[in-house]
Amino acid sequence: MVLQNDLIEFLTSFLDEGAILQGKDVSGRTAGGLHTEESIQAKVIVRPKTTQELSKIISACHQSNQSIVVHGGLTGLVYGTRSSQDQFVISLERMNQIEDVDLVGRTITCQSGVILQTIQELAEENNMIFPLDLGARGSCSVGGNIATNAGGNRVIRYGMMRDSVLGLEAVLADGTVLTSMNTMIKNNAGYDLKQLFIGTEGTLGIITRCVLRIREAPLSQNTGLVAIENLDSVIRFLKIVDSRLGGNMSAFEVMWHEFYKMVVDPKEKSSIPLNPDYPYYVLVEALGSDQTKDEDHFELVLSECLESSLIKDAVLAKSDSERQALWAIRDDVEQQTNYKPTFMYDVSLPIISMEDYISEVRNNLSRSWDDFNCIVFGHLADGNLHLIIGVGSDDIESQRKIEASVYEPLRLIGGSVSAEHGIGFEKKQYLNLSRTPAEIEVMKGLKKTLDPKEILNPGLIFN
Amino acid sequence: MVLQNDLIEFLTSFLDEGAILQGKDVSGRTAGGLHTEESIQAKVIVRPKTTQELSKIISACHQSNQSIVVHGGLTGLVYGTRSSQDQFVISLERMNQIEDVDLVGRTITCQSGVILQTIQELAEENNMIFPLDLGARGSCSVGGNIATNAGGNRVIRYGMMRDSVLGLEAVLADGTVLTSMNTMIKNNAGYDLKQLFIGTEGTLGIITRCVLRIREAPLSQNTGLVAIENLDSVIRFLKIVDSRLGGNMSAFEVMWHEFYKMVVDPKEKSSIPLNPDYPYYVLVEALGSDQTKDEDHFELVLSECLESSLIKDAVLAKSDSERQALWAIRDDVEQQTNYKPTFMYDVSLPIISMEDYISEVRNNLSRSWDDFNCIVFGHLADGNLHLIIGVGSDDIESQRKIEASVYEPLRLIGGSVSAEHGIGFEKKQYLNLSRTPAEIEVMKGLKKTLDPKEILNPGLIFN
Repeated sequence: MVLQNDLIEFLTSFLDEGAILQGKDVSGRTAGGLHTEESIQAKVIVRPKTTQELSKIISACHQSNQSIVVHGGLTGLVYGTRSSQDQFVISLERMNQIEDVDLVGRTITCQSGVILQTIQELAEENNMIFPLDLGARGSCSVGGNIATNAGGNRVIRYGMMRDSVLGLEAVLADGTVLTSMNTMIKNNAGYDLKQLFIGTEGTLGIITRCVLRIREAPLSQNTGLVAIENLDSVIRFLKIVDSRLGGNMSAFEVMWHEFYKMVVDPKEKSSIPLNPDYPYYVLVEALGSDQTKDEDHFELVLSECLESSLIKDAVLAKSDSERQALWAIRDDVEQQTNYKPTFMYDVSLPIISMEDYISEVRNNLSRSWDDFNCIVFGHLADGNLHLIIGVGSDDIESQRKIEASVYEPLRLIGGSVSAEHGIGFEKKQYLNLSRTPAEIEVMKGLKKTLDPKEILNPGLIFN
Repeated sequence: MVLQNDLIEFLTSFLDEGAILQGKDVSGRTAGGLHTEESIQAKVIVRPKTTQELSKIISACHQSNQSIVVHGGLTGLVYGTRSSQDQFVISLERMNQIEDVDLVGRTITCQSGVILQTIQELAEENNMIFPLDLGARGSCSVGGNIATNAGGNRVIRYGMMRDSVLGLEAVLADGTVLTSMNTMIKNNAGYDLKQLFIGTEGTLGIITRCVLRIREAPLSQNTGLVAIENLDSVIRFLKIVDSRLGGNMSAFEVMWHEFYKMVVDPKEKSSIPLNPDYPYYVLVEALGSDQTKDEDHFELVLSECLESSLIKDAVLAKSDSERQALWAIRDDVEQQTNYKPTFMYDVSLPIISMEDYISEVRNNLSRSWDDFNCIVFGHLADGNLHLIIGVGSDDIESQRKIEASVYEPLRLIGGSVSAEHGIGFEKKQYLNLSRTPAEIEVMKGLKKTLDPKEILNPGLIFN
């Protein structure tokens, strides 16, 4: 067993000068994420440039029983990158090379530290699209997207990050390099090992490289905002537009009344696309093949829904700036700061149970507070809702009570305490609400097999 | 440890009369699959009706170190269900209950022994589609489809079986019931354990129930057959139609010259849709939202490709019977019996490498045989080709030489010895061509963790 100081000395022996950060270079960095404005706690931050370097680092840490926390773009929302004074942080920020763009096989091969937006832009330059998209696109890394199985706004059409990864490479807890860089859509040669690292939050290995699937760029884009009177009609509207738009529907984002009211400014009535008094608003988008034809068809489908009174009002974006204005409403989650202090939740549940679920959450909250905000929005078509909840205080007792109000009702209806954000440290104690003891046992068994010394992101997801 | 006869006695104590088959009831059954016309070898065939029964059976087998082979619909193509005299066969054929159809959440929940076609028809009755489709639809089970991660003709649009499974339940090697019946598109609450059982050919657990994702039924279907002069143009045609048909392209099936000639009957020239002298034929299909509009657009795209000479000829199906006639050409693989004896292969590789790969296979074959047939077709857009090869004999030496000719060139180009059929016993010795020693080690580690006594499908995929 190598002592910690000897370990750093050993790393210095083969890494370049910029690879190792210590002291103020560590504490001067913010820990990132939505909630964590504090500075990074760690013995050292190690920033390899290649898989081989990382393999050597991890192998040495393994021999020394050195606990490691992996950092990507630090945009996670569940404290998954929190580290302590005695841990080593491995940051993938310098592993940011694009290795290959294959426009025939429709793949991009790169290191895992590449920023999501870089991949999106690279695809775009080649008349392709990398469909995964989320607010943190400018700073999150694709490795982090894979480790957390990121979701976002286009999951209903293109799936989650899992569905855009064809192959990957990971360094295991003992330093072994597991190269599984498949480039094909179909490969049934034995177990599909990449699945072990997608969505497991860096607990089973450190993702170093990946093969991402890109698609031909859509040739049309149509976006509408629709007002609807009740959730039952929202659900019927979903089925109708999904069917009538064929394979083209790419987003179906629902905003409950309170969300819409929060983000539109009543003082500037002229700029509000739809009257703010409807119970539900849906942002629906289709990506297709011919702007004129698709726009006509999109308009036809919505006008039929208007005629049948399924939807009460609708506005269609007629330009890119109008489209951006509609999306800006959906994306303006920051307005919640006006309701501070607030907590935000990310749950999934069967669509059919949503109305009762939201009632139950409100009932639970009303048992503890006379006055509270419960603002709901999300990717309804994926079963994924976000809740912003404010009760006037953010002490730990209030937080626990709110969490119980939001999470407990999920148990009986088979919902999940994490639709897309992951578990991290934040939701650990609620994992057993969405997973059975047998499931958690198998998770622990996998962890034990792949990281018997528990040096990779220890304590994350489960103990 | 319970002796084998005591074990059967124990099973008899809680299973109904029809559950246990022995003697002639075992040997009277054919082993199924494309290659295996022999009868089943097994001590006993056990046919539980519920997960609880299966759990009890497996728990007892585990205690007795009784080796088990799992049977679904017996339509696999890699000898994955082969069993021996001393093994127990567990057949899921009586676990065929539909448990739930949710048209809002768009899921079907069922036991794993349900036949694929039953699911397809159930979806259809509800104006939905279950997109996975393959020739064995009338007899393969969804549990087998999951265990082998089945592919088929619509993967380019809807993905493989993996992409249509939201949740599943499995009985582990020690009898533990692992219930992971997620119904949502998004669920990041810890590890996604269902991935352990998808495509692992029953080596890590026995799938008992599943939640399948269904989609809104397409409202239009357009199918065309196209003749093309070279593979480079096939690839450019793929990119153009995929882009111009937006999210609607659902099949892109390529037939090399020799395949087309094999299946069309030169004596009945009038019934041949396209002149049989072109080098390549592509069957392209789109599923959309409006028959008239989509048909016009489909025709427009193909006529532009004709005008630019990218494609040389084209025919569009104008009725269901015409569509079926075009698909009948692609699906008439049975014509290979005219070239008997033949071997069939299922490989995947980067599209960009296909031309060189096929040349190399032919070169390899020509080194051993002056005269041979090498007939190529497949799901090109997925990187998946099928090869039918006949050299005039089917002795084991010829077979090994052909396998080497087909598989060896895949090593350098990162191809796979199994695109969609799996490894089973048939391709075991070639697994190391497509997977690294580190990958195979991790596979073995998973097997050891989940089935330490190696009682489930022992020896399948790897030793």
